[in-house]
Amino acid sequence: MPRILRIAAAQMGPTSRAEPRATTLARLVRLLEESAAAGARLVVFPELAFTTFFPRWLLSEAELKPYFETAMPNPQVQPLFDKAKELGVGFYVGYAERAEDGRRFNSAITVGPDGTILAKYRKVHLPGSVEPRAGDRFQQLEKRYFEYGDLGFPAFRGPAAWHRPVMGMLVCNDRRWPEAWRCYGLQGVELMVMGYNSAAYDPNGGSTENEEIRTFHSTLAVQANAYMNATWAVSVAKAGNEDGSGLIGGSCIVDPNGVVVAQARTLADEVVATDCDLEACRQGKEKMFNFAAHRRPEHYRRIVEQVGAVVPE
Amino acid sequence: MPRILRIAAAQMGPTSRAEPRATTLARLVRLLEESAAAGARLVVFPELAFTTFFPRWLLSEAELKPYFETAMPNPQVQPLFDKAKELGVGFYVGYAERAEDGRRFNSAITVGPDGTILAKYRKVHLPGSVEPRAGDRFQQLEKRYFEYGDLGFPAFRGPAAWHRPVMGMLVCNDRRWPEAWRCYGLQGVELMVMGYNSAAYDPNGGSTENEEIRTFHSTLAVQANAYMNATWAVSVAKAGNEDGSGLIGGSCIVDPNGVVVAQARTLADEVVATDCDLEACRQGKEKMFNFAAHRRPEHYRRIVEQVGAVVPE
Repeated sequence: MPRILRIAAAQMGPTSRAEPRATTLARLVRLLEESAAAGARLVVFPELAFTTFFPRWLLSEAELKPYFETAMPNPQVQPLFDKAKELGVGFYVGYAERAEDGRRFNSAITVGPDGTILAKYRKVHLPGSVEPRAGDRFQQLEKRYFEYGDLGFPAFRGPAAWHRPVMGMLVCNDRRWPEAWRCYGLQGVELMVMGYNSAAYDPNGGSTENEEIRTFHSTLAVQANAYMNATWAVSVAKAGNEDGSGLIGGSCIVDPNGVVVAQARTLADEVVATDCDLEACRQGKEKMFNFAAHRRPEHYRRIVEQVGAVVPE
Repeated sequence: MPRILRIAAAQMGPTSRAEPRATTLARLVRLLEESAAAGARLVVFPELAFTTFFPRWLLSEAELKPYFETAMPNPQVQPLFDKAKELGVGFYVGYAERAEDGRRFNSAITVGPDGTILAKYRKVHLPGSVEPRAGDRFQQLEKRYFEYGDLGFPAFRGPAAWHRPVMGMLVCNDRRWPEAWRCYGLQGVELMVMGYNSAAYDPNGGSTENEEIRTFHSTLAVQANAYMNATWAVSVAKAGNEDGSGLIGGSCIVDPNGVVVAQARTLADEVVATDCDLEACRQGKEKMFNFAAHRRPEHYRRIVEQVGAVVPE
């Protein structure tokens, strides 16, 4: 019996620092409506979807404050929740979280078609640095602005309207870390959802990587980790030129064979939607990646017993 | 300063059960000569390179015996060692090992250009089953014929003639398991070498996968794990139709960006060779995959604390 859930990857084009939050939210609502019109029951938005990718700037506490949500939902984002409930569509969205105790996280939530928050995730693999790099026009200050996620990788069940998929969330750089995927794989995950803001090139002028190779890396990591965990994966960009700093696009929906079944073609607001049969995870989980039959954790201890590389003499 | 090592992937076509071992060894010697003529200093051969892929047959102890090497080298394989030393070329080769105590492993060794064995590896991720599947024409009995590898994933240094790369070995199915790659990645691996025999389709008539998707999976797993560990990878098939059971080809050399830089085009004996600059690993290891800066092992404990999947209600 197929368990078909139609999912939309709702890629966003660039959001400049100057763009009013209400304008950005109106774009999200429009993408949600477009996704619903395409038949999607779940819409995946990018990381930090409500604002520009502010960790590229060295900001004061006062400047930082408006980028953060102190509650979810809240009046600034309520119209998205209202529209989703009205349409009976759920969504994943990334946002900057300021907890009640003042701690800040790069977070994501999945909201059900009835408007309730099903689960929250806080990004574990923060890239960048705490201290700004002297002389650089653009920074990557996630390690300065956020704490490391403290919730681990908890899988959860989606609602009956989605055929109760086992779901897992990641945020951006997490998708390049096979440990994160495996922790969800070990919970039988059938649907991974994630958003990203990934630089298209070294914004300070380096030439070792370009947009093509970085888009390839983004897609490759999702394809292989989807295959190796026999799960669907939906990976969604904020793309294009944000105030002079380029972001890759390439938002994609990947099946449990690691095959890209839908991919965005632009660097702008763009919806791609496809039917995902959750039963397609079964073959991989029962054969090649039957973990109970084939894993040998006694040989994996380095993965938890050391952080950095220890190189032989 | 580049550290360039020229490597050959020496794919083998099918080896039937009836083929005399001396004939197969002569093919290995020819592939070695061809690789040396192409300038390679290291040649990578397949898994179980000296014989047919015998785990597809249910065999008696007496039938099994001749497939196993009780010493390495030994008179049956000595001509390969002699030719390699003469040419100053080293190699990776997979073979069926019977240890002195009678235990059997699906093993591989890397031999230096001076003919010494640099390291041995015993396959950890054995696929297949212990008991034969009733009524099936072809079996996959690796779990019956071999014990799980007991050496872990020990990286080692190649010789000065190869610019002392940090090397790691895998065998076949291991390449699909990110845990195995990461254990080597955590030792700073710069060059992963592996051989395989992978079914091109369900030899008993299933239709859920075909040669194209299985070749794609093989390449995808190597590309992504090479990228995620910032290492070169050389993955080499025994390919083609062995007594009615098809094996994929697709032997490839992959750079630390996950890009396939050379790939076999046939299902026959075929050499592809390319220059590999070991310094190309540096960028990934120092930036995106700087493990010391970015890994969070406190969240990875499921990877060692459970074997099979534990699915949420």
